[in-house]
Amino acid sequence: MGLGVGSSVASTTMTDAQAPFLLACRCEPAPWTPVWFMRQAGRSLPEFRALREKHTFFELGQSAELTAEITSQPVRRLGVDAAIIFSDIVTPLVAVGIEVDMQPGRGPIFASPFTSAADLQRLRPLEPEIDQAPLLDAIRLLVKDLAVPLIGFAGAPFTMASYLVEGGPSRDYARTKSLMLGAPALWHALMERLADLALATLRAQVEAGAAAVQLFDSWAGVLDPHHYTEFVLPASARVLAGLADLGVPRIHFGVTTGELLGQMATAGADVVGIDWRVPLDAAWARVGDRAVQGNLDPAVLGAPWPVVAAEADRVLAAADGRPGHVFNLGHGVLPETDPEVLRRLVDHVHERTRRGT
Amino acid sequence: MGLGVGSSVASTTMTDAQAPFLLACRCEPAPWTPVWFMRQAGRSLPEFRALREKHTFFELGQSAELTAEITSQPVRRLGVDAAIIFSDIVTPLVAVGIEVDMQPGRGPIFASPFTSAADLQRLRPLEPEIDQAPLLDAIRLLVKDLAVPLIGFAGAPFTMASYLVEGGPSRDYARTKSLMLGAPALWHALMERLADLALATLRAQVEAGAAAVQLFDSWAGVLDPHHYTEFVLPASARVLAGLADLGVPRIHFGVTTGELLGQMATAGADVVGIDWRVPLDAAWARVGDRAVQGNLDPAVLGAPWPVVAAEADRVLAAADGRPGHVFNLGHGVLPETDPEVLRRLVDHVHERTRRGT
Repeated sequence: MGLGVGSSVASTTMTDAQAPFLLACRCEPAPWTPVWFMRQAGRSLPEFRALREKHTFFELGQSAELTAEITSQPVRRLGVDAAIIFSDIVTPLVAVGIEVDMQPGRGPIFASPFTSAADLQRLRPLEPEIDQAPLLDAIRLLVKDLAVPLIGFAGAPFTMASYLVEGGPSRDYARTKSLMLGAPALWHALMERLADLALATLRAQVEAGAAAVQLFDSWAGVLDPHHYTEFVLPASARVLAGLADLGVPRIHFGVTTGELLGQMATAGADVVGIDWRVPLDAAWARVGDRAVQGNLDPAVLGAPWPVVAAEADRVLAAADGRPGHVFNLGHGVLPETDPEVLRRLVDHVHERTRRGT
Repeated sequence: MGLGVGSSVASTTMTDAQAPFLLACRCEPAPWTPVWFMRQAGRSLPEFRALREKHTFFELGQSAELTAEITSQPVRRLGVDAAIIFSDIVTPLVAVGIEVDMQPGRGPIFASPFTSAADLQRLRPLEPEIDQAPLLDAIRLLVKDLAVPLIGFAGAPFTMASYLVEGGPSRDYARTKSLMLGAPALWHALMERLADLALATLRAQVEAGAAAVQLFDSWAGVLDPHHYTEFVLPASARVLAGLADLGVPRIHFGVTTGELLGQMATAGADVVGIDWRVPLDAAWARVGDRAVQGNLDPAVLGAPWPVVAAEADRVLAAADGRPGHVFNLGHGVLPETDPEVLRRLVDHVHERTRRGT
């Protein structure tokens, strides 16, 4: 399969260059505003839940076929304009041997949180072709048939670090911030290793056929902008710069990042993800010439359909037809979301924005 | 005790008019930048924990003497420039008969969440002198001896509503937003009742002797600014307007409110609380002529002292000595915070800002 990678990338890239999602990522006019949803593959879909009853989260990830199947499900059911590989932010950490338990409704729980310099040794370099073979095989399988571009992804160094240091999801990130402020040399060493990890997996995903990547710095918005600049931005910038030669769009996303958007754009992103707390037009002004992705509040999808449609229209009005808008939610699809609402939403955005056809 | 209230208010107000905290709330020059901390009374202090081992949370609130004692503890130990009455956002809800269980580390849990118009009946009008007698008695006890102004407080309608509808703390506030968007008439009726509740308790607290009030809209920052304007601002504005004749400073606070600060100021606040995600100078520009309160990241207090001091200096530099700054954290004191760090921080801010003495 290794030999097939080069040609697979080449053919995919050529075929897909005119895909609405990729056009929008490059700020070029697209025939309609492309739509995909963070967490579109997974917990909200009944076909995923059926699989999840039979397998643990990590079992699913060990099978290239099941990973490809789950990744495809929302493309078939919802008609989205991009697929995102089914995986998790902590997957590369698991791949280098960090012990993680995936608890539904709670998230990843780490048996031994990161506390000292000795823990750096646990973060050996990632060798994607060995450590993440099923993931990369799934990408190779997917790009043969998938009608839409495939997005690869990784957690940004800060967000991975916060899981490692807190031992799981956190409300206040107190341990992470204590380490960052109290042991800056250790912090930067940790960030460097995690940047290497993110870069290694993202490069491998693109080489296997991913047509775009998203760097999830989901929790960066818990930081004071001054701390973000000093302790986080350099590592994220290194990851994004390390992808430049591959020529695929790089999306950079986090929540509660209103004050960080300008910096997240300068970190080297082609597309900046926006949560729902900032109106899309105000956010775009902070981001500058880049493309933007977002930003419907995921909780809106629990409202009656006319409200959902009106709220989507408000996002589209803020984008004002300007090239470079990828429609998405401001954060991941909530587990209780009705897939039928997601499907209608895709159709609705397509209909409202279809040009010249 | 009822007859003593009027004179108690008058004498307290006169005595305290020159208190640094009240001067800063009125944007008048103060001899030093006043300091207090959200959640300064409670979980981080060993003397509170000792009491909490013997009593449930609500037992403490049923005793005027214990409430007064807990409220005074941080004034004695930390040297803060204001006290805040020991209570909780959900207290007025409990007072009108809503069943709430206070779970340490988790927050208030409601046995029967609010789901329909029938639940409105459960929110009868608050009669503070009857329903909150121990709280008001505690205030009357406190203002006799307290060397600093006492802050009364209430949860803002949205934040109280979110607890009622979610049944407790939430990650995504999906139920609250579904109700808000899907049943707007019911939502507005709920907000109106909660505004009445907040107004009733705040007026009573001021009449008992509180020299300022804080309206905690802790979770308003989960909202899209458009939804905030339509579904939340009117009720909060009604509470704040209803206090205008009392002549005490009104503080209005929430977290992740970067995009809402201007609106929170126009809701009628004299002082706007700022979380740490927005630099204080940028936040102040959004707030206009009002005073500001904040905004050190509470997690910073877990760092070594020189870092804490440098971070506090950064907040002070952003305030730039402009009259109208109340130093505080950007959110409540974290439970694991060392009280000695809080005490040093109060001294530090006082020393750095002392003028002409």
